[in-house]
This record gives sequence, C-alpha cells and structure tokens, in this order.
Amino acid sequence: MAQVTFEEISASDFFYRNRDIAGFTNPSRAIFAAIRELVENSLDAAESLKIPPDIYVRLSFEGEASKETQIYKLRVEDNGIGVPPRHIPSAFGQVLFGSKYKLKQQRGTFGLGGKMAILYGQITTHQPACIMSSNGMSRIYMYKLMIDIQKNRPLILDRKVLLNKEQWRGTIVEFCLEGDYLRAMPKILDYFKQTAMVNPYANLTFVDPKGRLYKFTSVTKDMPKPPKETLPHPYGVDVELLQRLIHITPYKNMPEFLINHFHRVGEKTAQKFLTFSNISPSKNPKKLSHEEIVRLMHMLKKFKEFLPPDASCLSPLGEELLKVGIVKELKPEFVAVHQRRPATYAGHPFIIEVGIAYGGEIPKRSAFLIYRFANRIPLLYDEASDVSVRVINDMNWRRYKAAPDMPIAILVHICSTKVPYKTVGKEFIADRPEVRKEIGNGLREVARQLQHFLTRREHVDRERKRLGVFSKYLPKIAQFSTTLAGKKKLPDIEKLLKSVKKFGGEEEV
Amino acid sequence: MAQVTFEEISASDFFYRNRDIAGFTNPSRAIFAAIRELVENSLDAAESLKIPPDIYVRLSFEGEASKETQIYKLRVEDNGIGVPPRHIPSAFGQVLFGSKYKLKQQRGTFGLGGKMAILYGQITTHQPACIMSSNGMSRIYMYKLMIDIQKNRPLILDRKVLLNKEQWRGTIVEFCLEGDYLRAMPKILDYFKQTAMVNPYANLTFVDPKGRLYKFTSVTKDMPKPPKETLPHPYGVDVELLQRLIHITPYKNMPEFLINHFHRVGEKTAQKFLTFSNISPSKNPKKLSHEEIVRLMHMLKKFKEFLPPDASCLSPLGEELLKVGIVKELKPEFVAVHQRRPATYAGHPFIIEVGIAYGGEIPKRSAFLIYRFANRIPLLYDEASDVSVRVINDMNWRRYKAAPDMPIAILVHICSTKVPYKTVGKEFIADRPEVRKEIGNGLREVARQLQHFLTRREHVDRERKRLGVFSKYLPKIAQFSTTLAGKKKLPDIEKLLKSVKKFGGEEEV
Repeated sequence: MAQVTFEEISASDFFYRNRDIAGFTNPSRAIFAAIRELVENSLDAAESLKIPPDIYVRLSFEGEASKETQIYKLRVEDNGIGVPPRHIPSAFGQVLFGSKYKLKQQRGTFGLGGKMAILYGQITTHQPACIMSSNGMSRIYMYKLMIDIQKNRPLILDRKVLLNKEQWRGTIVEFCLEGDYLRAMPKILDYFKQTAMVNPYANLTFVDPKGRLYKFTSVTKDMPKPPKETLPHPYGVDVELLQRLIHITPYKNMPEFLINHFHRVGEKTAQKFLTFSNISPSKNPKKLSHEEIVRLMHMLKKFKEFLPPDASCLSPLGEELLKVGIVKELKPEFVAVHQRRPATYAGHPFIIEVGIAYGGEIPKRSAFLIYRFANRIPLLYDEASDVSVRVINDMNWRRYKAAPDMPIAILVHICSTKVPYKTVGKEFIADRPEVRKEIGNGLREVARQLQHFLTRREHVDRERKRLGVFSKYLPKIAQFSTTLAGKKKLPDIEKLLKSVKKFGGEEEV
Repeated sequence: MAQVTFEEISASDFFYRNRDIAGFTNPSRAIFAAIRELVENSLDAAESLKIPPDIYVRLSFEGEASKETQIYKLRVEDNGIGVPPRHIPSAFGQVLFGSKYKLKQQRGTFGLGGKMAILYGQITTHQPACIMSSNGMSRIYMYKLMIDIQKNRPLILDRKVLLNKEQWRGTIVEFCLEGDYLRAMPKILDYFKQTAMVNPYANLTFVDPKGRLYKFTSVTKDMPKPPKETLPHPYGVDVELLQRLIHITPYKNMPEFLINHFHRVGEKTAQKFLTFSNISPSKNPKKLSHEEIVRLMHMLKKFKEFLPPDASCLSPLGEELLKVGIVKELKPEFVAVHQRRPATYAGHPFIIEVGIAYGGEIPKRSAFLIYRFANRIPLLYDEASDVSVRVINDMNWRRYKAAPDMPIAILVHICSTKVPYKTVGKEFIADRPEVRKEIGNGLREVARQLQHFLTRREHVDRERKRLGVFSKYLPKIAQFSTTLAGKKKLPDIEKLLKSVKKFGGEEEV
C-alpha cells in the first residue's frame, strides 16, 4: 500500500522553502529586496514618530562566494521610533510577528520583509544579524541573533545593554548576505532615486561596495499629515471579519456595534441601514446566528448610502508633488495629473493618483514609460503583471490620439491602508476590480487632457505648415500682382502675413 | 510618545489577510483557483497510488450574492489514495499542514491551495466544508469542518464513520463559495482542456452550473513512471539545509554523510570531493563548526565533478507526447520539440521541455501564442511575468527568421521536484538563472529547426516564383526563336521546364 506522510511546517520554514514568493529569487534580486525591505521599515519607523526620516545604508564587500556572487555586509541605520527591547528578538527573528498588521497606510504590509532579508543572509552566510535600537532614552539595546527556521523562533546569541550618552534614537540592522550587486545596481539606484522623489522630506544616503556615496537630501521639511489607523469600511467586510468584531465588541445593540466598529457609520446611517436590512436595532450582535451574520454581510454590501471612506487614514502624494516630481524627472512638454477620490476594496480605503507626461526628455520607445508607486514606494520589478499596466494596455489610446510609440510617460500611485500586492515581495499589484476601475477612470481623465494638448499641437503644426506655404508664395503673388497692375511699390505683405497668422491661430482648421 | 504595538498572527490569518498572493484576488479568479487547487490535489492523490486519475468536478448554483457574484457549491470527487482519518481535519483545515513537503515531483507544492479554497468559501458564505474519504477498506470517514483562522486550527462540527460496502476509495470535498463563474468560464474550460492534454491517462469530468457536461476521457492506460522522492543535489544546498541534515544524520564520518544524504554522490565522488575541499574523511559531521559548514556549502557548489541529477525523480512529458499534444491541438504545418537533460537549481533537479509550431491552425497575432506547463499542469494567468515569456521576449528571433507576428506557437514545460513558482497561487515561474538558461537553450534548439523549415520554405517559394517566370516567358521565347529560325514546329518546352524545375529545386538560389 502506498504511503503518504503528513507534516506541519512553521511559517518561517514555509518562506525559507519558498523564498521566490518573497522576492528572494536570485542573488541580484535578493540584494535589492534586502535593501528595500529594510529601507521601507526605516521610513515607516521615522514617520510613525512624525519626524523626517534620515536613513543611512551601507553595503560593503566581504568576499567572493562564487564566480557570480559575492558576500556583502548590509547596514541600515535610521532615526525612527526604535523597537522596544523585549520585541527586538521576535521583530527580527520571527516570521509573521510585527507591528504592520494594522488598518493604516504604511509601507510594510506583511511583517515579513525584514525577517526574510535576515533569513536569506543566514542561509547564505550562516552569520548572525546584529540589531541595535533605542527610543532615545537612557539605554541602547544590542542583540545578536539568528532564526530557528524550523520552529520560527529567534535564537539569541548575545545581548548587551549600553548607556545612551548621546541620546541616539533609531534602529541599526547589520548582517551579511550573498548577492550580485553588479547586476542589482541599476535597480537599487533607481529605487533610491524614485523613493527620494516621492518622499521629498527624507534624507537617504547610500554607500555602495566601491565606497561611492549616493546622497538624496530632503528638499522640504513639510511632512504629509501622517495617516491614522482606521476602522474597516462596511462595503468590504467578510464573514470572518464580522465574527472577529462580534467576538471583541463590548456593545450590546446593533447601532452601537455599527457606529463603533465601522468606518464612516454615524447614528443616522446606522438607523437607515438597519431599516433597509430589516434588522432590529435592539438585537445583540453576539446573538446573531450564522445565517444572520452572512445576511448582514450581504446587506452591508448592498446598502447604497454608506459614505465613501474619508481620506484621513490615507496620505496620498497630492497633485502638486506628483507634478513637481514628474517635471523634475522628465522635463516634459506637457504634463497632467489627477487624484481620484477615495474608494474602497474589501473594506480597505484607497486613493489612486495618476500622471501623464509627453515629450521633453521622455524617450521614444515601443511602449509607454510607466512608473508605479504604492504607499510612497516605487515598484520596480514584474511590471508586466501589474494591474496598472494591464489597464494601460487595455485602454483604447487611439481615442485620445496617443500611441505607445510616442514619447509618453505614465505614473500610477496607489495608497491604501492595505495595498493588494500580488506577491509577498511587493513587486506588483493584484487585479482587484475596484482598483482597476479607479485606475481606469484616473487614466481616462489625464488622457483627455493629453488629447487636448495633442489636438492643439496638431493645430499649431498644421498652422505652421499653412503659414509656411503663405510666406513662401505671398511674396511671389505680391510681385506678380504688382507687375500686373503696372505699379512699382510692393504692398506690405508682412502685415498681411501677421493677420493670417493671428486669424489662423484661433480658427478651427 | 508615539506607540507601536506588536502582535503575532497565525499562518492561516496571514493568508486570510493576503489572499491575493494565493490567487484568490477576485470572484472570477477565486472560483478558478478553487477548482484547480482541488483538481491538482486529486491528480496527485491518484498518481501516488499509481492508478489513472478519475476526477469528477461539479459546480452548482446556490443563489445570488450580489449583482456580479453568485454563490456556488463546488464538489470534487477522486479515486485517489484517500486521507487517513486522523489527518483529515488538519489536511483540510490547517494551513501549512500537508503531505506536499517532499522532494518529489508533484502538482501541489505549498500545502496551501486546498485549504485556501475552503477558507475562501468560509469567509464568503460562512458554511462548513464537508470532506469524505476512504482508503477503500471497510470504512468511510466524513467530517464537517471550518477553519479557526486566528488560531490556524480546524474546527470539527461533525464527524461520522460509515460502512464502506462498495469498497469505494478516494476523497470528496464539497463546500460553498462566492464566485463569478461566467467570467471565469473560459479559463476553467481551458484549464480542463490543457490538463487533459498533458495527462492523457486521466478521466476528467466537469459539470458546470447550467448542467453542461464536459468530459475528457483518457486516451491511454499507460501512466508515466511515477517520480520518486529524492535527496537534495549537492550543487543547491544552503547552510540551513546542511544544518538540518547534520542534525538528523546517524552517520559519523563525511563519506557516509555525503553518500546517504545527497543525490548522486557515490563513494568515489565523495572521496574526490573531500580531497578537493581538504576535509578529513574521518570528520564527524556533527562536529563541524559554523565556519566549516559555510565552507562546506561553498565547496559543494564549487566542485565540478558531481554528476547532474538523474531523471528518475522527475516525470517529464517526453518528446513524443509533447508533439502529439501540439499536433492534436494546433494542426500546424511544422512542429519541433526538444527535451533538455536534467539540470538543477537550489538543489532541486528539473527538466525543461519545449516545443515550437508554425502555421496550420495557429492564429496570426501580434505576439507568439505561448503555452506554459509545470509538473503537468497548465499555467493560465499572469503570463507576462513568467520566466518563459521573458526568455522568449529576450531572444533574437530574427536570427531564426521568426517574428512575433508570424503564426507561431511556443510551449514550455518545466518539471521539477520543486517548481520555483513566484506566487503561492502558482500562476507563474520565477526568473531563476538556472531555469532561464535551460529554457533559453531549449528554445534555441527548436528555433534552429524552425529556421531550417522557414529557410527551406523560402527556397521553395522563391523557386515557385522563378518557375512561374520561366513558364510564362519560355513559350514566348520558343515561339519567337522558332519564327526567327524559319521553322514551324515548336521545341518541346515541357521537357525543358521540367529540367529547370528539377535543377532549381536542388540548387542554392
């Protein structure tokens, strides 16, 4: 008889076995992923304190691993909030442990990236990671740790408490890993450049293995209002979420339950909804049966009068910054930007911002130049599967007089309390219908503006040609007519040409 | 002082929060993913018993959920090995528990898909899943269960033991889920069709919500030799794996350790390797220091004389079947197939098979028609990011006289003890350099054959044109010469034309 054996593996073991899904596919992507994951944690750590991030990244060469890969030491320092000492081992040595499981706009989502970087370092170099952290008070905590992958638990090799004489605040992570920096370099530099572009209040410093210094200095001290943690929006709940809320709620009737656990549900809306769904307001949510919970979920989705999520929990770039960023980067002839109103998918509010630019330094290629951002971080890999790229490819650009071989750049930024990434490596965004729709609407808006620009440009071009014809033949006609009339003095054709120009510039051709 | 709170979440909760990464992105993909995950488990369950799979899938309409989504009941029945009763609850109600964590070619990889389908059903309909299973002996076990997502544990609602009078063997999974079948339909039918194509020994039956029956009957009883579980290949080990092997090994010296824990390491190779790496054969592996383990890993990668993995642990389609499949499906004018020799990435052996076809029923499009398979299952979503597609796009096709707008179809099959999927939803394959290289080499081989075909066809075309010219002018020249010579009878130009044809057909033009 054939035998099948069953076993349970830890979350850490799962990601060790499947590191492709977390972005650690090859030595080049691994080094890119390690840097970005730690930089994003650092940006979040500073912003949660409402101070401008100041991040220092150093990659130094430690030795050859094989013909194509080297061993590097990666050090990332920030001025963020610091990690409480009792949480340091788990925050860096235990997968699925972290501070990112909130309904709040932040760069990290999975509570996974930093640990994956350390795990990858461990399995390629077998050296411990060193973490130092302080909240700026009297002590600095230092841990040397590895990950027990099979148990998904941190292994603490050393722990020190140092006096913090200079009141340093922040976190330093340092570990060794195998990588192929030469191949990863263009993406890494692009990553810093684009990150600086959408985080203009941050200082980023990168020292590469050759000792080259890349410095991206903040150009403003103004930070966007930090996003708040929020409640789930009623349009996006599922049964699991309802059950969790019912389990923890202290409220004993439906209106209070709705008002206190959902985003943008006030007293009036709650009443209206209960009438609409024929649920008694005095019902104790803890007494809802299975069937009633399912019905409540469907009714929440069907009710048309919930307000859309407000943007207070989101921190979009804003049209101004978007425009400045594009102009600075591409110096285009034309640019249009648009911020959509907040929308929601699966209970998570999100805002789409788009920009389109034409001409200037934008290269002519066989496809549009596309920039993708999510919660203020650039997405640089696996573009082809991203929902934005799909929407762009599906659009009828000819309607807008545009074509992929024109010098056109398109930028899409999604910010959300939960970006629907398709991979744990945060490479691209899933094709959620609500997100697709918003991106489409945003793009059509800027595409219309591009169309106006292109139409006007076409007029101007045609006009220029027409004028060219006039100015070529008019002098000859004038000469001829003068001779014909038996006169000697030519008429003032300059005046005439000017009048044609003025007239033609305004008229529809 | 700002506060950051830390928490630990279960693996189940992680995938609940991030179901996009497991392929459950929207109602249409969710229903596709649920079907394919269960069908693939069923195929594996029958093959592990070495019997031809007989799988029955029924999707029935249960009611409207919203304007665009409906509730369906999905039932998948197989004739597989059955799940041991004590494992049923965890095998279907606990994420990261399963029988798939082996070095063996199988369709399932993550031990996740079946549970994700059930979890998705639960959060959209809040109904339990029903599982029945038997190994064909005296009893059938029936469980009704749900998943405690926060704890990642099965919740057993009901359990029955039935007498198995008819000695039925297999597993039945039935549960309700929300979905958009209408939109998913083309992909689902494609999925069955392509699955049948590469599993010609399987019976597949699908009854759709309208009661339409799709039947794919086996065309052969011959099953490929079932792949064996294998040992890791020395070229792909990392420190973690070495440590695990050292932890469990009963062997007390290096040669025995190497021979018994690694694929294709015999006594001679072990000796040679130990000399090469300057490690004492009498060394007890359990006494290796951290540094020595790291060094051992690097040495294993550097040693050139390990044999490539043998194919006994893999079960490729074979060139014959590949060709038959392509010809049956596309009726092309030309087809070439090629199976590469086994290779290895990260310790996992794999084989690449490729096919290329031209003309016939292949449509002309702006891009090549691409079929992707992995371990005998078709991959239908997110094509653009797949390593095969990248390799295809990066190739210089003009060198082979081919272009994307020609009627060309390309098929790539990877079989491996561990397919490097990029997403947990098994949509596409990561860009591992070793895999990329093998695909590239395979494609170049068939592309050369295509080039010969196209060159020959070009000759024939040119020849046909040349003959056309001859046969047009020769009679006139004959007439003219006859008149000029003052003769009456025309020479026999038919004979001449024939000789030109024969000659021209063999000569280089």
